[in-house]
Formats: sequence, structure tokens, C-alpha cells
Amino acid sequence: MKTVTFGEIMMRLAPPAHGRFLQADRFDIVYGGGEANVSVSLSNCGLETEFVTALPDHEIGQCAVNALRRYGVGTEHILRQGSRIGIYFIENGASQRASKVIYDRAGSSIATAKAADFDWKEILKGADWLHFSGITPAISAEMTAAVQEACAAAKEMGVKVSCDLNFRSKMWSVEKARSVMQPLMQYVDLLIANEQHISQILEIDISSLPTEDTNLTREGCIATAEAVNARYHIPMIAITQRRSLSASDNKVKGMLWQEGKAAFSAQHLMHIVDRVGSGDSFTAGILTGIQKGFGLQKTVDFAAAACCLKHSVEGDFNLMSEGEIMALAEGEGSGSVQR
Amino acid sequence: MKTVTFGEIMMRLAPPAHGRFLQADRFDIVYGGGEANVSVSLSNCGLETEFVTALPDHEIGQCAVNALRRYGVGTEHILRQGSRIGIYFIENGASQRASKVIYDRAGSSIATAKAADFDWKEILKGADWLHFSGITPAISAEMTAAVQEACAAAKEMGVKVSCDLNFRSKMWSVEKARSVMQPLMQYVDLLIANEQHISQILEIDISSLPTEDTNLTREGCIATAEAVNARYHIPMIAITQRRSLSASDNKVKGMLWQEGKAAFSAQHLMHIVDRVGSGDSFTAGILTGIQKGFGLQKTVDFAAAACCLKHSVEGDFNLMSEGEIMALAEGEGSGSVQR
Amino acid sequence: MKTVTFGEIMMRLAPPAHGRFLQADRFDIVYGGGEANVSVSLSNCGLETEFVTALPDHEIGQCAVNALRRYGVGTEHILRQGSRIGIYFIENGASQRASKVIYDRAGSSIATAKAADFDWKEILKGADWLHFSGITPAISAEMTAAVQEACAAAKEMGVKVSCDLNFRSKMWSVEKARSVMQPLMQYVDLLIANEQHISQILEIDISSLPTEDTNLTREGCIATAEAVNARYHIPMIAITQRRSLSASDNKVKGMLWQEGKAAFSAQHLMHIVDRVGSGDSFTAGILTGIQKGFGLQKTVDFAAAACCLKHSVEGDFNLMSEGEIMALAEGEGSGSVQR
Amino acid sequence: MKTVTFGEIMMRLAPPAHGRFLQADRFDIVYGGGEANVSVSLSNCGLETEFVTALPDHEIGQCAVNALRRYGVGTEHILRQGSRIGIYFIENGASQRASKVIYDRAGSSIATAKAADFDWKEILKGADWLHFSGITPAISAEMTAAVQEACAAAKEMGVKVSCDLNFRSKMWSVEKARSVMQPLMQYVDLLIANEQHISQILEIDISSLPTEDTNLTREGCIATAEAVNARYHIPMIAITQRRSLSASDNKVKGMLWQEGKAAFSAQHLMHIVDRVGSGDSFTAGILTGIQKGFGLQKTVDFAAAACCLKHSVEGDFNLMSEGEIMALAEGEGSGSVQR
Amino acid sequence: MKTVTFGEIMMRLAPPAHGRFLQADRFDIVYGGGEANVSVSLSNCGLETEFVTALPDHEIGQCAVNALRRYGVGTEHILRQGSRIGIYFIENGASQRASKVIYDRAGSSIATAKAADFDWKEILKGADWLHFSGITPAISAEMTAAVQEACAAAKEMGVKVSCDLNFRSKMWSVEKARSVMQPLMQYVDLLIANEQHISQILEIDISSLPTEDTNLTREGCIATAEAVNARYHIPMIAITQRRSLSASDNKVKGMLWQEGKAAFSAQHLMHIVDRVGSGDSFTAGILTGIQKGFGLQKTVDFAAAACCLKHSVEGDFNLMSEGEIMALAEGEGSGSVQR
Amino acid sequence: MKTVTFGEIMMRLAPPAHGRFLQADRFDIVYGGGEANVSVSLSNCGLETEFVTALPDHEIGQCAVNALRRYGVGTEHILRQGSRIGIYFIENGASQRASKVIYDRAGSSIATAKAADFDWKEILKGADWLHFSGITPAISAEMTAAVQEACAAAKEMGVKVSCDLNFRSKMWSVEKARSVMQPLMQYVDLLIANEQHISQILEIDISSLPTEDTNLTREGCIATAEAVNARYHIPMIAITQRRSLSASDNKVKGMLWQEGKAAFSAQHLMHIVDRVGSGDSFTAGILTGIQKGFGLQKTVDFAAAACCLKHSVEGDFNLMSEGEIMALAEGEGSGSVQR
Repeated sequence: MKTVTFGEIMMRLAPPAHGRFLQADRFDIVYGGGEANVSVSLSNCGLETEFVTALPDHEIGQCAVNALRRYGVGTEHILRQGSRIGIYFIENGASQRASKVIYDRAGSSIATAKAADFDWKEILKGADWLHFSGITPAISAEMTAAVQEACAAAKEMGVKVSCDLNFRSKMWSVEKARSVMQPLMQYVDLLIANEQHISQILEIDISSLPTEDTNLTREGCIATAEAVNARYHIPMIAITQRRSLSASDNKVKGMLWQEGKAAFSAQHLMHIVDRVGSGDSFTAGILTGIQKGFGLQKTVDFAAAACCLKHSVEGDFNLMSEGEIMALAEGEGSGSVQR
Repeated sequence: MKTVTFGEIMMRLAPPAHGRFLQADRFDIVYGGGEANVSVSLSNCGLETEFVTALPDHEIGQCAVNALRRYGVGTEHILRQGSRIGIYFIENGASQRASKVIYDRAGSSIATAKAADFDWKEILKGADWLHFSGITPAISAEMTAAVQEACAAAKEMGVKVSCDLNFRSKMWSVEKARSVMQPLMQYVDLLIANEQHISQILEIDISSLPTEDTNLTREGCIATAEAVNARYHIPMIAITQRRSLSASDNKVKGMLWQEGKAAFSAQHLMHIVDRVGSGDSFTAGILTGIQKGFGLQKTVDFAAAACCLKHSVEGDFNLMSEGEIMALAEGEGSGSVQR
Repeated sequence: MKTVTFGEIMMRLAPPAHGRFLQADRFDIVYGGGEANVSVSLSNCGLETEFVTALPDHEIGQCAVNALRRYGVGTEHILRQGSRIGIYFIENGASQRASKVIYDRAGSSIATAKAADFDWKEILKGADWLHFSGITPAISAEMTAAVQEACAAAKEMGVKVSCDLNFRSKMWSVEKARSVMQPLMQYVDLLIANEQHISQILEIDISSLPTEDTNLTREGCIATAEAVNARYHIPMIAITQRRSLSASDNKVKGMLWQEGKAAFSAQHLMHIVDRVGSGDSFTAGILTGIQKGFGLQKTVDFAAAACCLKHSVEGDFNLMSEGEIMALAEGEGSGSVQR
Repeated sequence: MKTVTFGEIMMRLAPPAHGRFLQADRFDIVYGGGEANVSVSLSNCGLETEFVTALPDHEIGQCAVNALRRYGVGTEHILRQGSRIGIYFIENGASQRASKVIYDRAGSSIATAKAADFDWKEILKGADWLHFSGITPAISAEMTAAVQEACAAAKEMGVKVSCDLNFRSKMWSVEKARSVMQPLMQYVDLLIANEQHISQILEIDISSLPTEDTNLTREGCIATAEAVNARYHIPMIAITQRRSLSASDNKVKGMLWQEGKAAFSAQHLMHIVDRVGSGDSFTAGILTGIQKGFGLQKTVDFAAAACCLKHSVEGDFNLMSEGEIMALAEGEGSGSVQR
Repeated sequence: MKTVTFGEIMMRLAPPAHGRFLQADRFDIVYGGGEANVSVSLSNCGLETEFVTALPDHEIGQCAVNALRRYGVGTEHILRQGSRIGIYFIENGASQRASKVIYDRAGSSIATAKAADFDWKEILKGADWLHFSGITPAISAEMTAAVQEACAAAKEMGVKVSCDLNFRSKMWSVEKARSVMQPLMQYVDLLIANEQHISQILEIDISSLPTEDTNLTREGCIATAEAVNARYHIPMIAITQRRSLSASDNKVKGMLWQEGKAAFSAQHLMHIVDRVGSGDSFTAGILTGIQKGFGLQKTVDFAAAACCLKHSVEGDFNLMSEGEIMALAEGEGSGSVQR
Repeated sequence: MKTVTFGEIMMRLAPPAHGRFLQADRFDIVYGGGEANVSVSLSNCGLETEFVTALPDHEIGQCAVNALRRYGVGTEHILRQGSRIGIYFIENGASQRASKVIYDRAGSSIATAKAADFDWKEILKGADWLHFSGITPAISAEMTAAVQEACAAAKEMGVKVSCDLNFRSKMWSVEKARSVMQPLMQYVDLLIANEQHISQILEIDISSLPTEDTNLTREGCIATAEAVNARYHIPMIAITQRRSLSASDNKVKGMLWQEGKAAFSAQHLMHIVDRVGSGDSFTAGILTGIQKGFGLQKTVDFAAAACCLKHSVEGDFNLMSEGEIMALAEGEGSGSVQR
């Protein structure tokens, strides 16, 4: 099974440890982005995957390519054009101080690329799944078109489509996001989203559904998935549920719904090392479970465990193996030393 | 509004992360001191402030000046004389292991300065507030005199006086502290202290007041403030209340009392990155609230939030903006990523 | 009082902070090993101690010697022969992600040493205690013989013998361990072990003893010690009890049993900086208490406090002084700053 | 004497030591830019100075402001607008491997600022000198206009104008540079340039002048200055002469010409720690000499010494004091330890 | 053109900067080995290449695989077996203090691999060149056999064979090396070696050839190549010539001989950042020139330039692009900043 | 042979690499001092040695003790009293920028110790040599007395006395130094000094002696030694000769004179990593040669080689083995990699 992912990969610059921007005299460098993170997770679980993007043809662009190659992600269809890589600065919060992100992504190679630069028939050859998130069409009108063309090509070629709904208010308005994302849903075989984005972007009313501790109850989740399915005809729907106790402690759990059946993961309480990319880990976990045929319950357990473990790994990429994730999914979370 | 603060700034040398002195092969360097910390906090909240001290006229002295200038604190009246800067070594504790401080401050420029070296009429020109802590008069008899002269000049010039009672047993005895601090109270418009120091140094008997979980109750705090006011005629009194669960987890809250009215902040439970300077952050929060006219409740909420957030910032200085502090004061403490 | 310890010291290579092997571009270096760790702890408590091992006669071997000398451990009888030092790679887990150890110890100087290389009559001259763990005889048949010879010499010379039962399944099978360790028990004056190893290696049936929260109850501990004493005639038995909540949080407590009397420590809940060597700290605490005549209760309190505090110190060595440990043993665990 | 400088300050990101981009996992951060560097040098020599630019109103923009404040540079007229700070990535070469710079400056706050955003009458109040380099007008048409308006205002207000001709071929063509820079020369009281830029941009023919070891001879320098003076009526002209032996070793010297008199510095041969900003150090040295009345010979000696010493300091800023520079200018270059 | 290289890749552990082992508290980690280094260089010049070895199937083994993938080297035929990766410790000398290497390579996965583990018919499919150095057959008798089988398969499949003679006295004796290497010469199409190894291992008498400044003269080099060709019938012979002035300064040059024609590179004098792998860079330069059809002179110039530039790059891998190497080969060695 | 050294050991704090104080945000920590450095060098050459000083009884004092123990130096007679350890800040120069030292040593434990605190009869038991430098008596009148008492005791006990004349103008005046050092010469069996200090402090007129390249010629050195011998009756005199070309490059050589015979070392030209302690390395080299019976020529060659190699080692201690030093003394200075 091979998954092609499509999106932006950025250089991430972060003060070490819990340092604030104002006191930083060095940045730790990693590279990441929603779809790239999914590809790395898939590769770490032994699945074939390729990441498609545009990057400048200079050494910094090459660094991003190398970061992907290092973890076994295919980079053959990455365009080398444009003049800069998007950057995001992040400082790692703690306790009541939230992590803070400053984006510097305007004018990046992918933001200045054209839809026509990507030859989807060629790119998707041999692929089983195409994955993108709501960030990619938000980059530019050209990238909106590129996603539409990719989805259409996928459909035509029998490639399944996975979409992480991910809405970023700094990139576009709710109205714009609705107008782009809703029509894309016709192509989607697997939707991953949290309840807020389902409500906001897909306009599914969840206001009267039962909640508990700020999240929808299990019943609420099922009702939400059924409503999405009813309106958009998406056969598989995964919902992630996070509760932020502080910048240091979060809880996560998830649901996977398919054809009227729902499976729920346990809830994990995490001390956070780095939460960036944890949603992408959940997505990759769902895709792994589906592609490896884990079945509904084991798939959602695996995805939630992947998401949980990502919080303990610095950087955007979830550097956990399938075996490590499965151990937690199956209940081994005592953190005893593995000698 | 401009606040002049007066005291010692020291070079702080700390092993990285949670390293012990015995294993350190490098020290992280910052500069800090009670009054300097207050000035930096005020500057970060957009208030004008100047820090007065004495520092040696060599590069290491200049480093301390530069640390202040970097955050916008005025350094015009800093004396450049003497031969050394005070140093304190600190190792950052964890769990049941307490943080440990070794002072090496004898013979510093300010410890060898004369009261007559400071021309308060000149220094306080244009100031609205003068702030000092109980550490400054403890440095030497000359500095005791300097504080007295500064207070007298302030009174004469209509500059309000703020005092953080802060008692350091390594610097002087309780008896000596009482004999110096009690007469200084006549000048004080705003007193900030914890209940132990009020009892020890100002000789206010709190032994029969009601407590709860090792701290005075709200009623006890009010009674304490009223007793201080009755004896020393200080119009505004702020009390900080800390509970140390471990070197990694503390709780803080505060009260602000003025003319018979008391306001209490919420209690914050913190995972600690660095607790040094958190009391100074509370003090600066009170001064900010007063100078910006927040009113009693918002002022104490702001001060407690500032104090809480300091625990998440490495170094003595509280590198939080007014907006960030206000958000927590108004209840946003979930630590969600701010993208 | 002088304690000779005998075993392997390894180079430990760890990615900084919570980094995974896959992302490491540098390793922090320390040296450690069960018996070496005990010696360092004893030295830190002011007791004389010597560590016996074999190390290669090159600079890296010298680094291990220097690490011991730095903390005052005698190195006079360390053999300088063979071609390599054993290495272990460790990544520091967090939350649900366990710490992971990769051993690279085959072919080390001690693994290729002969029993005859050690002249125990000479080595034990002037010693009061000999200490080894179950790791040393597991290294090789020659080291099994060396431990036997050391014990026999100790007995002959009136040197008491302490044994940490420590079973490592990667080094030998349960059957092999039983066949070696059980006969060694005849020499042992003090046994330190957890309940699992007592059951597995000494074949004491604890399956019907009462448990609580995954650990044996106090009654169960006493029954276990009595059973060990009945079968192996060991006069002093210490049992450590750990509960791993996650890689970030553990609980520990301990029991010390002698001649029908048992003393139990309080249970400590720790945020973990580094848990490696915490069992060795417990052992050293017991030995310190015995050698300094603390009495049963104070000894187990001291040992548990030493074990607890080790979790806050990076590296294998427990860099805590007797005074710091005693303060916690006596109940001061608030972690307030020590100025 | 007060100097206002005007230009762009960028975030500089560099792999540590001699690391290549391809292997970097962290960047050291400093802030710098031609005119900002001049201001810091002037401040380090005790002269008053202010730097004018535009920076985004977020924490990263604030970091640049703080970097200037730290060294005593006035930041009062810095505009806080736009969305990003320009970035340049630099790797530090060695031996035959040249240092490499990748610019990422498009769309920065100053590149998107308008000429009308700067109120020169207000900014230049109290100033004695205005300084800019050829980089500032190259940023955009608006910045070309801003420089012209600044020069016109300076002339009107009796503020002298200093220009570092600095031509960057990545920013604009030779033709464009000529059309902008030549008309600006009417305002210039002090021109600093190397011989190539004088020839290229000011179209002074130096092809037939005598050279030696790739640089113009003293006679050639004088003839060049006279030709510039004849055509552009600039009263003071400083020429820097560099010879790059390798990325590790360079030679520099300089000439200062005024009213028919020329003074030449000694030539310095340097082992390079960091050569960025060394030209700006020369410029600041000339301005310091003029403003402090050193006279022609001492001024050029001081400037060349400042330039030479910059090569030994990491970062864009020349953190040398006036005394240190003067010592080298007066011949003390043995590098003996100063205890 | 695709080159398969075969050998050992080791983990290299080095104290930072010029630190000695005795003072190191951390090691910088890179991975390298003669043949792996050649593959990385070829990949950096845009040529297809694959590295064949054996590595343990754990995370540290994976780190070595990832290091190769990061730079685009194929890893498909790497065996994942055995229990450890070879390690070498290196401290970086300076001035009169030589760099020092401690090998810890016994028992590595490749040292315990069998010749039969490698299926050369499969591995060499699609390859144009096979490259190995004298280190690979020195690893073990099995690896001697593996190299012989690889050469035989290459010959049969029309794959050309390149051999870097590289003799390591710590791995085998001169006699043993002669008995293995001389028979292998029948397969070799390109030999790279220095004059000492040609004399020692291939028993070509160079004692009466003219030398100059410790190296053979051009005439001597030609005579040497002709003698090698006469005896072993190797069509292409490259000779590297190094002169070590100190640990900080070396000179290198090279010769390439083919069918009676010889081309000589310029001699480069280098300040050394890291000289490990510079010989491999020369080899890769020769292979690049041959595969890209540069011709004799340009090939040796390119190889010497690659070798020279490697000295400026930390780590075993030569992270220089074809364009950067070519620029130096064509004479641009001034080290001017490339903006 | 056992050497007791007596003096001050300080904490040295240095910005990393070539950083200036003004830009430092961390200090690398080592411990060093003239006599301590000599002891470490002697221990590294396999000689027994003990260092005597006073250090505060807190963790930072313990760090200095541990630094000595790590390298095998005896610490049994170190007094643990007083309140602080002397500190010196050093920034590492480069090229024309000199290294800079800021001392902060007033009030240290040894500066406040009494002569009577040291029991020389006890301390010198079993010693063959006593070594001190001109720095120790300069610390205080009490330390002047302590040195006198130590010398007198040594004489009485048949312990030979070695003195490094080392004059520090920041500690005392030339006149004071003369009045103390000249009377001490009666005890000295071995004097080590440079020509300037011999002239200044011992008042030997060298103004008319022949020089060459700023240093005395061989004849001048001999004449100087003879004059010292004539006046002070010191049997062995070693003279070090340094020429500072820049902060990056120095030359050193030395002479050893005994009973009318003089031996001269080669001159070494060094690229400097760290020159602090290089004079102490020369001294230790002379003492090693004498104690091991190398003879005059080999002793001075060894001492100069030790001095030379120290320039390549970071920190005050010369971490070179006897074998490494001897190799250079015997002419192997090519810096080739030692595999």
C-alpha cells in the first residue's frame, strides 16, 4: 500500500527547551507540515509513502528534502522552484503559558506554485491513497485548484482519498473554507476532524448534542459522524477529542466510525514534550490501521496511541515504530524502562 | 508613570536544565535582582522605569547594564564603580530535591558604595514611584542609609514609595531587620509581603489567625492587613501566599487590601520551569495595576497571573507581555497553542 | 568502614533531554554501573569505598577511572586490560513513552577477564563490606567464578557481604541465574531485592501473599523476608517496591527486615529526571545506615529517600549528600528553595 | 555628536562553527544589517546614535529592537508594521570553502514600507550625521524615495550625510544602481567604498590606474578619490581595500582622502572568526574619527583597526571598545593576554 | 551511471571542537566509513549510488541507514542482522597535537556476517561500477571472500571495479594484506592509492624514485603508475599525495594516469576543520570525473578539489556539491563570501 | 617521587569558542591555577603529587576538589574554610584581538587563610619536592608567611624547592614583589622564569645582553642564568621564551641551565587553542625530567614540548600523557592522525 500526501513542509525554528523568543540566541531546526508528518508516520510503520510539495532549489530547500529522505519518505515528485521555504517560529509553552506560533509562510515555493505544475496522473501512479489536509487548499487559489485536480485524478484512478479537515483561521475565513472544503467532500473516503471543525466548516449542527468535560459524549460523536455521513456521504469518519488542561498536560481520545459502527479509544493523559503534529499522528494511525487491516477497534486504539506518544517526541515528526505504538494501544503504558 | 527601583543586580550562574553543581561543566548566565526584576516587568507592560545600582566599570558590569537596556529599562543613574558584581549560583531542583542557591555577593560594587554616591533629588526627577525591597537596606549600613535618604527624598518630592518586605536571613538577623525596616514603613505607600515576613519583621502577631492548608484564610489575610495598617499606617497592602508541594509544583495566590477593602486572586497551580523572581513579578503586577488604574480586583488578579506565569519562564526576568498576563488573569489558562 | 564493590562500569551514551535515538546528533556521556553507583553514593555520604573492575588501557578506559576518582572512589585495584569498555545507549522516555536501553557490552574488558586476574586477599585487605549485584556473575562464567572467589575470601577474612539480587533477562536465563545466585546466598549478610526477583530467582513463592496496588502489602513483605531467611539464612533483607505510573512519574518505598523486625519507609511519588541508578541508591542507603548505625527505621527511611532523590539527578550516580538525603528522610520534601 | 542611520536589520541564522546548512540542526541567531552595525559600533565608541527601520510588531521584531537596545542604540523611531523581518542564512566557510549567504528578505516590513511612513524632520531632530548604505535604496522604489527624502531633509537641516556605496548585485542591476546612487551623491559629505564599486556604480574609470597584488596602489587610490571628488564634489572619500587569501585569511587596509590630502592605514592580515560587518566597522571607525576629531591619519588607522578586529568577533556587530581599537591602531597587535 | 559501494559504516563519536577524550562530556555523532563516504559524495554530485553493508536491526543501526538515506544513498541491500555497529572514537587534534582514533569495531554486524549473506547477482543488477577499499577485506575472512565474490560477479556482469588500496595496520599485517589485495588487482579497473601503500602492499619498489618535499615527484608518480600497470594490468591509476605540516595544516595533490597519460592537479594548502574522509572524497571525485566524462585533467583537478574542500567540512561525509567542487577545480579558491 | 604544590585554584569562566564577554550567555567552567596545573601535569606523567590550598566548604569548593581528584592529584591537605573561591573570567582572543582576563579573586578562602592554618611538617611528610609560584606569596601577607614557612620546613626536611617566578602586576607592585621574592631565593633549588621577570623582580640587568627577534639569544640566556646563579646561588635555572605573533599564533622555546651547562629546546610555532597554563606545563615538564632523570637536553626538550602541546588543549590543565609529550620532544610534530 502506498500513500501520496500533498501539502506544505516548513522550516520550524524553536528556542531550546521552554525558552521564549525574547531570550533565544539559538533556534533548534526541524522541518514539518501536516501531510509531511503523516508520510513520516506511515513510513515509520513500514508503509510506502511519497510527499508532494514545492521547495526552493537551494540548500535550505534541500534540507527539507533530506529531512524526508532520512525517514524513508519518497521525494521524487517534489518540485524544486520558487525562492523560499515557509518558516514557522514556535516557542514551547509550559504550565499556564501557551505555546506560541509565528508564521512566516507567505511567498513560499508552494504558495507561488501553479496548479498546473503538478501532473497528478504521473504522481498518483501506483498509489493506493491520496491524503491532504485543509491547510493545503488554504495556501492559495492555485493550491485549491491543485487539490481539486488531485482529488479528481484520484477518483478516476481508483485511488482513495483521505482528508484531515484542519481549519486555520489565520489562513482563510470560515466562509472561504466552507466554500472550498464542502465541495471537496464528495471525493473523500476518510475524513479526520475534531468536532469544532466539523461544526464550523462542514456546518453540521452539534450544538444540541450531549457533552461531558467540554467534549462530545460517545453518543454525540456517533450522532455527529452520522450527520456528516448523511450530508456528505463519506464512508469513514474519525473524530479526535482533545482537552487542554494546561500547556504541560492534555488529554486525547478518538473515535472511528464506519458504516454505522463506531469504535472508541481509551483516553490518554499526557505530560507534553511537544504536541505539534499529534493530530497528524492520529491521522497516520487511522490510515495505517486501514491499510494493514487492523479492524475498527484496533485501528482507533492504534491511532489514539500514536497521537498520545507523539506528545513525548520533540519535533513535528512522530518517531515511533509500529511496535511501540501497538504496545500502548494494547494497554502497556506504564513507561517502565525497556532494557 | 515612571518607577525608579533601587537595589542590587547580580550575575546568576546556573547549571543547565536540572544539573547539579557537582556535575556542571557550564553555567547559563542571566542577570537579576529583586528590584531589577520589577523594572523589567514594568517595562514589559509598557511602563517607564529606571533601575539604580552600582556596577563595576568593566565588561562584566557592562553585561548587567546591557541586560537591562535590552528590555528597555533606563540605566542612566547606574554608578560604575567598585571592583566586582555580586554573583549567585543556583541549581534548579526537581521533585523532592530543592533548588539550591550559593551567594557570592560580598564586596560587590553596591556593597562597597556609599550612601552619598546617590543623588536622589536628581535620580527621582520625573518619577512617580520609588520601589525597593528588604534586600537593599540589608546589603550594608551605607545602603540602609541610602534607602532612608531615597525614601525621604521621595516623600519630599511627592513620589510614592513601594516596598517588598523580603527578608533574607543570610544577610542580616531578624532583630537587625526589624530595627531597620520598621522605621522605613512610615514612608511606604504600598507594602508587598508574605505572611511570615509580616509576622517576623513587622511583629504583627498572626499566630491566632485562622489558616487552611498552611496559609492564612481570607479572613486571616484581611486581619493581617488591618493590623499592619493600624500599626504602620500603610494605605495599600498586598499579601502573597505560596504553597510548595515540591520543587516541581507550587501553588500561589494573593490579596490586595486598600482602605478596608480586600480583593483575592484565584489560586494557580504551576509546573515550575524557574520560580526565581516570581515574587517580583507579583509586585510588578500590583504596581502595573495601580499605575494603569485596573482597580483592586483586576490588579490582584493581574499580579497573581504575572506571578504564576513567571514560573514558566527561565531566568530572573518575567518576559511576559501585559496582554499575555491579562489573558490568564481573565481566566484563559488552558495553555492551548496560540497559532 | 570501607566497602569494596565489584562489577562492570559502562559508558552511557544518551541523547540530550527527551530526544530519541533516531533524532540524536550528540550523546551526553556519563559512566555508571550498579556497583560503581553504590560506591559513589557511599563516598558522597563520607564512607570509604573502592570499586573493582577491568577497563581497557586507553583514554576511554581512563575516562571511566577518572569519573570514579572525581567522586572520591578508590580505583587502585582496577585492572587495565582488554580492548573495550561496555557501552549502553539510553533514551530518556516521557509520559507513556518508556525509556529504552540498547546494550553494547559484549567483549568488554571485564567480560574477557579471568577470575584469576583478581587477587581477593589483596583487594579485600582493610575492607568491612564486599558488595556485588546479580549483574556481575551474569557477565561470564569467569566472572561467576570471580564472585564466588570474592565471597569465599570475604567470609574467610570476616568481611561482610551485600548482594543486590538484580536479574537481567538479557544477560542470562532464569534457570541459569537460579543455579548461580542461589548457592551464593550462603555468603550473603545483606540481600537487597524487589519481590519479583525474590520470587523468580530465589524461588520463594509469593503468589498467595496479599497485594495492594500491584505491590505486596506490608504483611506480604514481612512474609517474603521470613521465607527468604528461612531458606537461605540471610540475616538482613531489604525489599524495594516501585510502581511505575508512567515514564514521568513513579512511586517507591522500601522495607528493611532484620531478625524478625521490619521497618517500612514512607512512599515517595516522584517526577522523574533520570531513574537509572535509583535502585543502587537504595542499596547504598541501606549500607550507609548499617555502617553508620542509624538503626532499622532510620536506615530504611534514609535508603528510600536516597532512592527518591536519585530520580531528580541526571546520570547514573546519585550526587546527593548525606545531609540532603537525611532531610528528606526526616520529612522535609517541600522542595522550597534553599538560599 | 549624534548619528542617525537608516536601513534594514535582518535576523541572521547560522549553523554553529563551520557547519554547513546541510548538516545544521540548530542556528545561532544574531541580528544585523549595514547601518545597524554602524550604529552599534558608534555606540560602543561612546557616541550617540539611533537606527531607523521598520519591523513587524511581534516578538521576533521585538528581538531585533532588543538587540539594538542592548548595545545602547536608540530605537525610538523604528516603525512597528508589516508582517515579517528579513532573514539571511549564512554558513561560515573555512580554507578554500567560501562562506555562503542565502537571502530571504522579500516582503519584509521595510520592503513593504512607504517613504511617507518616515517623518525625517522629526527623526533628524538633534542629529549631526545621517548614514545610509547602497543597500537601503536597493530595497524598493519606496525606500529609494525615502533615502532621497532623508538626504534632502538632512541637507536642509544642516545634518551631514555619510554613504557606504555598497552594491549588492542580487538586489538590483548595475544600471539601476547607477541611476539611483549617482544623483544621491550630491548630498554626500563622506563616501566610503571599495574600488570596484566606485568603478561600477559611480562610473569612475580606474582601469588604467596602477595596481599591486590585486589592489590599487596608493597612487591609484588617490587618483580614484580625486576623480570621484572632481565628478561628484564629495569632500571626504574613504576607500577600503581587501584581499581574500582564503575563507580563513584576509588582508585589509584603507585610505581616507580629504581636500587633496590622503592618509593610508597599515595593512592587517587576519585569521577570520567572522568577516560579516567588517566593512561597516571601517565606516563606523571613519565616522568616529571625524566626530571625535582624530585627524586624517589617526582616523584611517582607527577605521582599519576597527575593521581588522571585527574579523575576530562572531556576529554582525563589532563588539570592540574605542580603547581596544585604538590600541591596535597605535600598533599593539601582538595579541598578548590582557590580564 | 550507478555505483555500488561495499564496506563498513561506523558510528563516529567525537568530543566537540578540539576537546580531548579526557575532558569530554558529550560526543558529536556522525556515521561514516570509506565506501559509505564515497557513495555520499557521488550522490551529492548527482550520481546514483547504493551502499551495501550489514547493520544491527535496532534503532542505532537504523540511525546509520537514515544518515545514508538523508543524502540520497540507496540502502535497499543493507542487511539488518548482527548485534552491534562498529564505533570509532576520534578527537580532533590541533597544531602539533595529532588527531587520535580509538577503534571499537570488533563484533560488528559486518564483522560477523557471512560472505554467503550477500547475493551479488541481485545487488549489482543495474550497476555500472563496484567500489571497495582495502578496509573491507581486512574485516574478516568472510568479508575477504565477499569482496572476491563481488569482484567476480562484477566482472561477469560487465560492472567495472574501483579499489581504494587503503591499508590499516591495526586490522591486518602487511603480509596478510599483500596475500589478499594482490590477487584482487586482477579485477580492478581503477586503483586509488598513495605511494606508501603501493609500495607496501603491491610491492612496487619506489625507493629509488625521485622525491621532493617528502613526496614523489611527478616523474616518480608516473613511474609508479607504470610499474603498477605493468605488474597488475590496471588501466587507470590515481595517486594521492599528502603532506602533513601539522594537525592544523596539510597539503594535498593528486595524479591520474591512464594508458600512458598522466594528469596532475594543483597542490592545495588547507587549514583543517576535519580531515577524515578526504581520501574518500578524492576517490569519489575520480569516479565522478570518469562517469561524467570530464577527461583526465579535469577529473584529477576535480578529485583534488573535492579532497581539499572535504578538509573544511565536519564529519566523514563531504557535503560539497558538484558546482562548488568544480569552482575550486577551476581555480576559484579565494574564499570570498558567496552572497 | 612526590611533589607538593601550594597555591590558589580558581574557577575559570569563559564564553565558548571565541565569544566576547558582551555576547556570552553561557560560561564554560574549568578550575585552574599555576600550582594546581603543575600538579595535574605531574600526575598525567605518572608522578605522585598533592595540591595544597584553601577552599570553601560548599559545593562549588567541592567542584574544585573534584577537578583535581579526577586527574589523580592528592587533595588530602586542602583546607575547607572561608566563604568563596576565587574566580577569573577569560575570553579567548583571536588574531589581533588579545585574550582578556578579569580577576575576581579578592576575599577567597586562600586570601583569607592564615599562615598558621598550614602544618608544613605534616603536609611535606613523604614529599621530595615543594613547588610554588610568585602568585602565592602575592595573595596576602599571611600567604607570604605561609610560603616562607613552607620553604623553611622543606629545607629542614630535605625537600627540594621549585619556584616559578611568575610576577602579576595586578596583585602587587614590583617593589613589593622584589622584597618578598628575593629573600625566598635562598631556598630555591630550581627556578623557572622568563627573562623579563628575572630582570624586573630579581634585578638582574639583562639590558646589554644580545637579543634576536625580541628574545635573548642563547648566549644571553646563559649569561642571565649565570648572573642569577652568581647572586642567588640557585643551582638549576630554566628560562622560557615566548614570542606572541598574534592571539592565534605564538612561538615558544626554553633553556635549562645547571652547573654551568645549558641545554636549549627547539622553538615551536603554535596555532593556539588555549594558551593559559602553558607556562605551568613547561615547569611541570622540567620537574618531570628532573624527577625521572631525563638529563639536561631531554628535560628541556620535554618541557618545551609539553608547553607547546598545552596550547592545543582547552582549559588550564595540560591533558597530555608523557608518551605524547615525548613523541613531540623527539621530533614527531607532523600532526598525522594516530589511528
